[in-house]
Amino acid sequence: MALDNIHIDYFKQLLGEENAKIDSLHKVAYSYDATRESREPDMVLFPRDEKDISDILKYCNENLIPIVPRGAGSGFTGGSIAAQGGIVLALEKHMNKILELDTKNLIVRVQPGVINKDLQNFAESHGLFYPPDPASENQSTIGGNVSENAGGMRAAKYGITKDYVVAIRAVLPNGNIIRAGKKTIKDVAGYNIAGILIASEGTLAVISEITLKLIAKPKIMRSAMGIFDTIEDAMNAVYKTMASGVTPVAMEFLDNLTIRAVESKFNKGLPTEAGAILITEVDGNLEEEIQYQLELIESRFKENGCIEFKVAKDSKEGQDLWFARKNASQSISIYGKKKLNEDITVPRAKLPELLERIGEVSKRYGFKIPCFGHTGDGNVHTNVMVEDLKDLDKGHEAIVEIFKIAVELEGTLSGEHGIGLAKAPFMKLAFNEDEMNLFRSIKNAFDPNNILNPNKMGL
Amino acid sequence: MALDNIHIDYFKQLLGEENAKIDSLHKVAYSYDATRESREPDMVLFPRDEKDISDILKYCNENLIPIVPRGAGSGFTGGSIAAQGGIVLALEKHMNKILELDTKNLIVRVQPGVINKDLQNFAESHGLFYPPDPASENQSTIGGNVSENAGGMRAAKYGITKDYVVAIRAVLPNGNIIRAGKKTIKDVAGYNIAGILIASEGTLAVISEITLKLIAKPKIMRSAMGIFDTIEDAMNAVYKTMASGVTPVAMEFLDNLTIRAVESKFNKGLPTEAGAILITEVDGNLEEEIQYQLELIESRFKENGCIEFKVAKDSKEGQDLWFARKNASQSISIYGKKKLNEDITVPRAKLPELLERIGEVSKRYGFKIPCFGHTGDGNVHTNVMVEDLKDLDKGHEAIVEIFKIAVELEGTLSGEHGIGLAKAPFMKLAFNEDEMNLFRSIKNAFDPNNILNPNKMGL
Repeated sequence: MALDNIHIDYFKQLLGEENAKIDSLHKVAYSYDATRESREPDMVLFPRDEKDISDILKYCNENLIPIVPRGAGSGFTGGSIAAQGGIVLALEKHMNKILELDTKNLIVRVQPGVINKDLQNFAESHGLFYPPDPASENQSTIGGNVSENAGGMRAAKYGITKDYVVAIRAVLPNGNIIRAGKKTIKDVAGYNIAGILIASEGTLAVISEITLKLIAKPKIMRSAMGIFDTIEDAMNAVYKTMASGVTPVAMEFLDNLTIRAVESKFNKGLPTEAGAILITEVDGNLEEEIQYQLELIESRFKENGCIEFKVAKDSKEGQDLWFARKNASQSISIYGKKKLNEDITVPRAKLPELLERIGEVSKRYGFKIPCFGHTGDGNVHTNVMVEDLKDLDKGHEAIVEIFKIAVELEGTLSGEHGIGLAKAPFMKLAFNEDEMNLFRSIKNAFDPNNILNPNKMGL
Repeated sequence: MALDNIHIDYFKQLLGEENAKIDSLHKVAYSYDATRESREPDMVLFPRDEKDISDILKYCNENLIPIVPRGAGSGFTGGSIAAQGGIVLALEKHMNKILELDTKNLIVRVQPGVINKDLQNFAESHGLFYPPDPASENQSTIGGNVSENAGGMRAAKYGITKDYVVAIRAVLPNGNIIRAGKKTIKDVAGYNIAGILIASEGTLAVISEITLKLIAKPKIMRSAMGIFDTIEDAMNAVYKTMASGVTPVAMEFLDNLTIRAVESKFNKGLPTEAGAILITEVDGNLEEEIQYQLELIESRFKENGCIEFKVAKDSKEGQDLWFARKNASQSISIYGKKKLNEDITVPRAKLPELLERIGEVSKRYGFKIPCFGHTGDGNVHTNVMVEDLKDLDKGHEAIVEIFKIAVELEGTLSGEHGIGLAKAPFMKLAFNEDEMNLFRSIKNAFDPNNILNPNKMGL
């Protein structure tokens, strides 16, 4: 159902022609995300401020027009795709400013369209640190990060987006502007609205401003790598290190398939016979702390079959160690035309069993399934590689198997990518009908006319 | 309106006479909390398990019987008082077990009636650490801590209850049992139900099981104290220390009135002329880390007017330094029969202004207002001491002034005690009507018949 001209005219009037687009260039550009699924919206709107968002939402609510907030469109689950058409509310064009840095309270206030890496750089230029670093950091926006509760490599030590959000301003579907949370570490007055908006994938309200906590930047960082004969050894080393009292900033892994893919593409001298490599980073303000952590990690690694442990002498060597991890995702494309990429997460001690069972799925279905990811927090990026597109259905069956295994191992369908459209059919694997009904009640409490990002999350 | 006999009989049948009480001994014992306000319930029920909770709630929901979950009744805002009579659901008698310790994943699973300190001790006996330590730690239960999002002295470094909750099982008013969250650090599937249950004061669901993150226990802890001529100096020292890159475990303060109260009661040789003292604690695994932190704190303190800085040589001396802080609350009773105790919180850099303006309120109203508390996170316990009970209304007026100041300084009505009954009238100072309506919609999504802890939070 196309958007009535009367609505189109209203929005052009409200925002100016330059901020209310119906040409096909805009409709195509705002039709997809990183899943490459797409659906063209009827119109793309560029709000200039919170008042615009409020006016737009109020109008959509009164006229039952579906509307989908969008940051950079870099999501992996179709969260920003206009599944029912209607309007894409594009926040990256005007609402991309850092509004306030409060160095006394270590707080920064930003608009939703600020790019993650820009915020990281801004913080660093003031000697401060915004830790969440999703792989999409160069594209993805803070609004999107909050809406998906984005993680990243530093989550093992520094947590994820939710751990840095102290306050949110948001616009409800009826146009009401609400504030949630305070510039304080503690605030228990009223329900935790900020908490429920985080990871709500733009289905409850449009976030118009975010206040984030920053921390002091540790003075020293050092990277190290451990090489393992088997993936089981590596996974045992992960959870035993994390349980030993040291918390590395990052604890990333690549399996053998991933190592070989990177090596075949970049020729970096990686150990192609290794079952897995673990790449880790520690930080602190004193050299003694760095040594203490590295020694503890090395001994846990070696107790668990690590055949070589290498510490980077300087940041150049550190970057070399990280090269393989940073280029894992693009390299594995050698195994198939279509990558079915999921981000299941299990309790860390279940990692050995998870990887073993993924190996069985790979054998049974005949797909290569390279795995890498954030083992420090139990988050594994599994990639079912489909060479022949006629096998795509079979590929999706393999994914369902993997989801079932994750849930059986007390894990979750998604550690950081969200549900969106891509995982919506699998929600029933993880949640029972009572739980789904509760989600629907909450959706209804915020958005009784179901205008905001409809068809998402299996609701 | 008393409870019908038919309902009383149903509950006796369901739980056995020993777990369904209507005698006045029980009704009185479960009528109050730490506010000393009270209202007798019609019946006190002791569920034996989650199934009992579900049966009870379902029945209450169908018969519109108000029901209030209760842990230890140690709250400061009347959160567990049966404001409309009906049933008190007492969880401390049977549902007080630690169900599982998972040392591989550093996770513990507990029933809601477990006492905070018992959990801390249990964790410590396994070399692990559960940091949240509300002043009520010897009485208050984990279920209560989660329901109020309790803080404590260690919040500056280690955060508050919410930072340790990874999963919750809860019973909805309709009797449905739901699971929220996973044993994983990251989980973004579905709405963050655990996030909204935390701090919801028992108004949305009855929490039947809680899974908490534990951390490794740091090997070394050390306490120190700084003495300041003026409260402004001390408050400046607090926020400048916290912004300098070191994060002490605790950063507590006592003002002059509080110091004098403790001294007059215990004769410990405290500096009764000091404007304020700050008591701090640092921890780590290496002596070098401890020294680094203490030196940084000492220099920030001295740059901000600290006239004496004392480091505890051992844990005995550490306990001596903490004595004044631990006995602050009871000591200030010398200033008045009735203590109107609030826990406002502001961004740390606003502490000097907050304390100055509280001083003005004290002068204007003629009440002594001793202050102490968790300055590391901006949380100040203000105590309006009313000597003559006929001045109680005036005392409450002073409290309203203090709330207004906190909100003006971008702070919150409550850092850790919650809203309950005591602060319900002041919700409108902090939230506008749109925000209150959103709270009501959420309440209605969980509890459409309003049976669960009604009349709380100003809803």
